[in-house]
Amino acid sequence: MLESILRDQCQLDPTRPVLAGISGGPDSLCLLDVLRAAGYPVIVAHFNHKLRPEADLESASVSGRARTLGLPFVTDSADVRAYAGANSLSLEEAARTLRYRFLFAAARREGAQAVAVGHTADDQVETVLMHFLRGAGLAGLKGMETLTLLPVFDPEIPIIRPLLTLWRADTEDWCRAHGLEPHFDATNADQTYFRNRLRHTLIPELEKYNPRFKESLLRTASALQGDFAVLQDVLDKAWTEAVSGTGAGWVAFDASKLAQLSTGLRRNLIRRAGEMLRPDSRDFGFDALERAAGFVEKPGGKQVDFVNGLYLFAESGKIYLAEYEADLPSAQFPQVSVQFPVNSKQCDLGNGWALTIEHQPLDTVHCPLYTDNWSAWLDADLTGDRLTVRPRRAGDRFTPLGMESGSVKLSDFFVNVKLPRRARAGWPLICAGEEIAWAPGFRIAHRFRVTEKTKRVLHLEIKRLP
Amino acid sequence: MLESILRDQCQLDPTRPVLAGISGGPDSLCLLDVLRAAGYPVIVAHFNHKLRPEADLESASVSGRARTLGLPFVTDSADVRAYAGANSLSLEEAARTLRYRFLFAAARREGAQAVAVGHTADDQVETVLMHFLRGAGLAGLKGMETLTLLPVFDPEIPIIRPLLTLWRADTEDWCRAHGLEPHFDATNADQTYFRNRLRHTLIPELEKYNPRFKESLLRTASALQGDFAVLQDVLDKAWTEAVSGTGAGWVAFDASKLAQLSTGLRRNLIRRAGEMLRPDSRDFGFDALERAAGFVEKPGGKQVDFVNGLYLFAESGKIYLAEYEADLPSAQFPQVSVQFPVNSKQCDLGNGWALTIEHQPLDTVHCPLYTDNWSAWLDADLTGDRLTVRPRRAGDRFTPLGMESGSVKLSDFFVNVKLPRRARAGWPLICAGEEIAWAPGFRIAHRFRVTEKTKRVLHLEIKRLP
Repeated sequence: MLESILRDQCQLDPTRPVLAGISGGPDSLCLLDVLRAAGYPVIVAHFNHKLRPEADLESASVSGRARTLGLPFVTDSADVRAYAGANSLSLEEAARTLRYRFLFAAARREGAQAVAVGHTADDQVETVLMHFLRGAGLAGLKGMETLTLLPVFDPEIPIIRPLLTLWRADTEDWCRAHGLEPHFDATNADQTYFRNRLRHTLIPELEKYNPRFKESLLRTASALQGDFAVLQDVLDKAWTEAVSGTGAGWVAFDASKLAQLSTGLRRNLIRRAGEMLRPDSRDFGFDALERAAGFVEKPGGKQVDFVNGLYLFAESGKIYLAEYEADLPSAQFPQVSVQFPVNSKQCDLGNGWALTIEHQPLDTVHCPLYTDNWSAWLDADLTGDRLTVRPRRAGDRFTPLGMESGSVKLSDFFVNVKLPRRARAGWPLICAGEEIAWAPGFRIAHRFRVTEKTKRVLHLEIKRLP
Repeated sequence: MLESILRDQCQLDPTRPVLAGISGGPDSLCLLDVLRAAGYPVIVAHFNHKLRPEADLESASVSGRARTLGLPFVTDSADVRAYAGANSLSLEEAARTLRYRFLFAAARREGAQAVAVGHTADDQVETVLMHFLRGAGLAGLKGMETLTLLPVFDPEIPIIRPLLTLWRADTEDWCRAHGLEPHFDATNADQTYFRNRLRHTLIPELEKYNPRFKESLLRTASALQGDFAVLQDVLDKAWTEAVSGTGAGWVAFDASKLAQLSTGLRRNLIRRAGEMLRPDSRDFGFDALERAAGFVEKPGGKQVDFVNGLYLFAESGKIYLAEYEADLPSAQFPQVSVQFPVNSKQCDLGNGWALTIEHQPLDTVHCPLYTDNWSAWLDADLTGDRLTVRPRRAGDRFTPLGMESGSVKLSDFFVNVKLPRRARAGWPLICAGEEIAWAPGFRIAHRFRVTEKTKRVLHLEIKRLP
């Protein structure tokens, strides 16, 4: 049974070393014995938390055991109490972080294929119960898995927990049967630790409601692991399809792809984006997701609050979930900051965009009134030869092609053509004198269009340089 | 807030009646008031459980309240205690079943769009906690939903729970503020009821571990509802794709379609099939699903045990999950039970299959040695003109085309060509005298093949009639 777990569920390669985290307690001594019995090359790794007076003694005993077995031994220690204080962590959390950092760093250094730890079915029950009490999603309620990656410690070396189907008492039996002499951690009885209160008080209490509570919970975790795996597959796929970009403080979805997904999937993607931007928040409840889903379906308004300093807004076929203060991507826009003359064949519009210009007699070119938004033909006699480029100014007005008389406020025009808000201030305007002759990407001014009276044309083009 | 829940989450149509289950307690009186205040046409429905001495009095008070409000009133009662005894149910379960039967039957009779019940956030917490204690999958841990179908009571009329975000205390406040005089069920304090023990003892105990336990659990349920919805969508789709048929005691998967799915999805489909065949079982744990997944990936053996009197087997490109005693579909096979002569141009092979036969001089037909498995050309002078059809007999042997000498046991031949086990006993054999001349669907006998010496041929064909 344990051998097949090591081979199939932990996917261990018998030719490569496994680094086993050994505390000296019954679980870890059983783990070490099981790995050795199955013939895997083991590196014994011990982290000395130095929290208890007997810690050094235990450390020496583990190192002695490794020596007796002829196994490589690696060890380290740290001031867990100081680390906990400095980082506002509980002693348990601080110990776990420092221990795992050591284990994964050692595994990488030693070329180990996996870090093995001695978590048992009891640990699983306590973990799931703890998540249940504190409020958790599927990821917490599914508990620990036999094989998993902890990317925060190492992106490639997995952690394996081969004893997850054994109860703590089973590992103690194993140690007795195999003549192993484990240490028993005296702090396990200390009920100031949350986990110990669960173990010694709450779980016995819950067993009054269901005598097989622990077995039931173990089964629940196993079923939820299956559900979680399916859900992750689906979400990963949908994420890849629907997310068009991410950056510091923002996630951008392709609005039309998001719209094709089911409501449930859409909500889950928004939640995942929220969790990515706010890993510690638990506020992604029904109301927030409902509001987001409503916005995604009809992004009529400009933006809507999400939760926790995040908001949603729609722009150019994308739906952004972003921090209010996020530095949203604007590298895609041409942006200018001051006025400058167009005095060469090509001039720089920022972010890798350039304006090119050619004077041509009318008869040598085929000169359409309108081609695409990125090139323009103007009457050179009307514009004169001294064009300038500048960003917008307060009070700018514009008479777009097709508007016979009057003008519109440039700010209204920008809203109208859906130029993203943050691109507006630096958007380059091609001017003849004070007058806007072309708003590149959108429209030329009616007055400067080519007509039958035109003799000379200016051909302008704006493009992103490769 | 409540109005938008009624409109958006409960999807109520303001022009059609809602049937509200009213016990007379604070939750249900609040529900009734909220529905009326929002302008929905309400039918007051009351089920008298007759479990407590004051039940009739309460019943009369609810009916009086409906009369005062000028609302239609429907009521019924039943002997809950007797029903519980007869069906080995707890009083709570029996009461729920009888009450819901009444509510949905009344809703249908009265043309109501939904059955509304007064479940509160406290009921939600208790429900999720109960499922957690007893061991549950996502379906249980997600708790009750604001809008859902209970197909076991009615396939079309949903149950709605508009008060699911209100605490019980909120509904009591509401009643006080609106001058409503609810009954308080004295049995609510009776700790022999499991739910009451949770309410009065366990939840306060759990609040010692997390003072905001109830709020956390409510949030957990809401998050899991989202996950559940996505998972159901995915599973429904995969089920439709991969299941090729179901019947009493069996589910058949298309093996190649099953193989295209992810491992997680495959396991979930097998679990769903298991739950369909064994709705009360909780045995679909990791081991069983692992075994099933292994079999599905390499269905080398003939069959493998699942759990709870179910087994998996592979047959003709399908994977069946079935009860040992299930009457598996065999309507697709031609099946005969006795010997009979082939004395007309067409004869019946059972289940809509027929054998047709033609005598032809060799020179008028193009006569291949082999076409498909469902037609055969034999040397008529060798077979003689008096063919018979019969099922197999103990000791039958067969010399298939291509086997120059000797013979094989027919039983081995059937295994070899992968004829499903349960089709074998009745499989029609076309015989010349005692000798098998053709095993339709597979091979003719070597001895009766058409050779250069053949003068007259028999052309046999077997097909399913439209």
